[in-house]
Amino acid sequence: MIKENFEKYIVGLQNKITLKLEEIDRVAKFREDNWTRPGGGGGKTKVMENGKVFEKAGVNTSSVYGSLPEPMQKLFQVEEAKFSACGLSLVIHPQNPMVPTVHANWRYFELYDAQNKKIDAWFGGGQDLTPYYLFEEDAKHFHRVYKKVCDKYDPMFYSEFKKACDEYFWNTHRNEARGVGGLFFDYLKESEKTSLEQWHRFVTETGNKFLESYIPIVEKRKNHPYTEHNRKWQEIRRGRYVEFNLIHDRGTLFGFKTKGRIESILMSLPPHAQWIYDYHPAPESAEENLLKVLQTPVAWVED
Amino acid sequence: MIKENFEKYIVGLQNKITLKLEEIDRVAKFREDNWTRPGGGGGKTKVMENGKVFEKAGVNTSSVYGSLPEPMQKLFQVEEAKFSACGLSLVIHPQNPMVPTVHANWRYFELYDAQNKKIDAWFGGGQDLTPYYLFEEDAKHFHRVYKKVCDKYDPMFYSEFKKACDEYFWNTHRNEARGVGGLFFDYLKESEKTSLEQWHRFVTETGNKFLESYIPIVEKRKNHPYTEHNRKWQEIRRGRYVEFNLIHDRGTLFGFKTKGRIESILMSLPPHAQWIYDYHPAPESAEENLLKVLQTPVAWVED
Repeated sequence: MIKENFEKYIVGLQNKITLKLEEIDRVAKFREDNWTRPGGGGGKTKVMENGKVFEKAGVNTSSVYGSLPEPMQKLFQVEEAKFSACGLSLVIHPQNPMVPTVHANWRYFELYDAQNKKIDAWFGGGQDLTPYYLFEEDAKHFHRVYKKVCDKYDPMFYSEFKKACDEYFWNTHRNEARGVGGLFFDYLKESEKTSLEQWHRFVTETGNKFLESYIPIVEKRKNHPYTEHNRKWQEIRRGRYVEFNLIHDRGTLFGFKTKGRIESILMSLPPHAQWIYDYHPAPESAEENLLKVLQTPVAWVED
Repeated sequence: MIKENFEKYIVGLQNKITLKLEEIDRVAKFREDNWTRPGGGGGKTKVMENGKVFEKAGVNTSSVYGSLPEPMQKLFQVEEAKFSACGLSLVIHPQNPMVPTVHANWRYFELYDAQNKKIDAWFGGGQDLTPYYLFEEDAKHFHRVYKKVCDKYDPMFYSEFKKACDEYFWNTHRNEARGVGGLFFDYLKESEKTSLEQWHRFVTETGNKFLESYIPIVEKRKNHPYTEHNRKWQEIRRGRYVEFNLIHDRGTLFGFKTKGRIESILMSLPPHAQWIYDYHPAPESAEENLLKVLQTPVAWVED
């Protein structure tokens, strides 16, 4: 029943999040596209563009199943197998460069043998924040919300998943973080310590906290004045976001390998991006300060 | 001596090409950066930005050597080995959306065993054109110049290298070509039919023809009137260019794997790119016409 419950959960969360974003934006509405995957399953893509507050926001759910593609077999170290995967994936790129981009994902995966017997199951996901201008209190707020959820389950979860997030969202070819992190977890499987049902509760609770983690930051910064220069910096940093998603992101690669709907996979890409050769911000500027912070993971809240 | 001669050749060609581009642009100049690679070798990066004609143009030479990184060992199916690689790589993104982007690369690779004995050597490279608005006569001109070079060496070369180009510059995840192709060749090794010296002459001759293949197109289109809409379409298509280079391009991956200078590798990325969700050009527009042409390789000149 975990699968059915989680499928219902993500569709409900998708509605809750998109309604809230529309309420804040007041101008733009989400467009909805339902799609089916030839190999099995499909999804519901919701995208808002050119809003007053949100320049581009995608909130997608999908539930796909079928034969596990060969490259995924290698990854999971199994022979011929079947799989089902359902999840919600969102990326929000606001207009104002003072408002950070946010990404979140909550997913559940089941693996079956050739006789359709379930052989494995796990949860994965996380939430991370990518500011263009750093307001430390925003990063702290974001981390604090998720730490509180983690602490209810295990005193080690926050530091473990925070570290995994810093490691995962690392642009190795630039030697810098994509943003200020958050949580990242994968292969959350049934163990002696934690049942799959407990993981289920943990993951859905981080999902329930998403609006609380992000919306107060949007409200606080959305009318902050900004210049053309700030906007240019936002687009340069969005170039780094593109680099991470196309070069490193496992979710994007999973989408390609399972032949998911390409426009749904790439809705994560920012509306505008720039690449200027060998760009360096002015010494001691706010832009340079961000770069310094992205070079070493920061302990945003006390462990 | 092939290596030394080719190294001299690419530096000369780099000067020739950058001088010509400056002459045409009249406003912007190339900035020159010399860099060294910790593992051995280095390069000379030349980049021009915000010109009147050229929005961003990178013309780079490099000559690197050292231990062959492990992922490259697998690719070349060798054990522990040393390598040297030198080449010229260029990408030119013009301002005017009626002028196509062009990419070219000419390179020479040598492989040595642990005792520094040369065990293999080959040339590689090619040239390809990426229009935003299709002028068939431009595509034909570009292909015709290179066919003439090919035909001097072997009547089969043009069709073989043209086909390889169509296959290589294929954005599999979009199921469309990056542009209208040109030539692509790799692993041009000594054989009974062709000596390495002949490959050397062939590759340098395609290099010598680069300005003749591209500059007349620039001259013809650089003052063509265009609208904001044309510019938007150019940026959307430049998004596809980013996708190809970061997801599929072997040269970019080679640069990452051999820990080349990141700003030199990514100089190929366009100055501005856009991603609009599920964008479709108007039916029977010039934009839709381009997309149709990119779906099936075209025989631009008679074989």
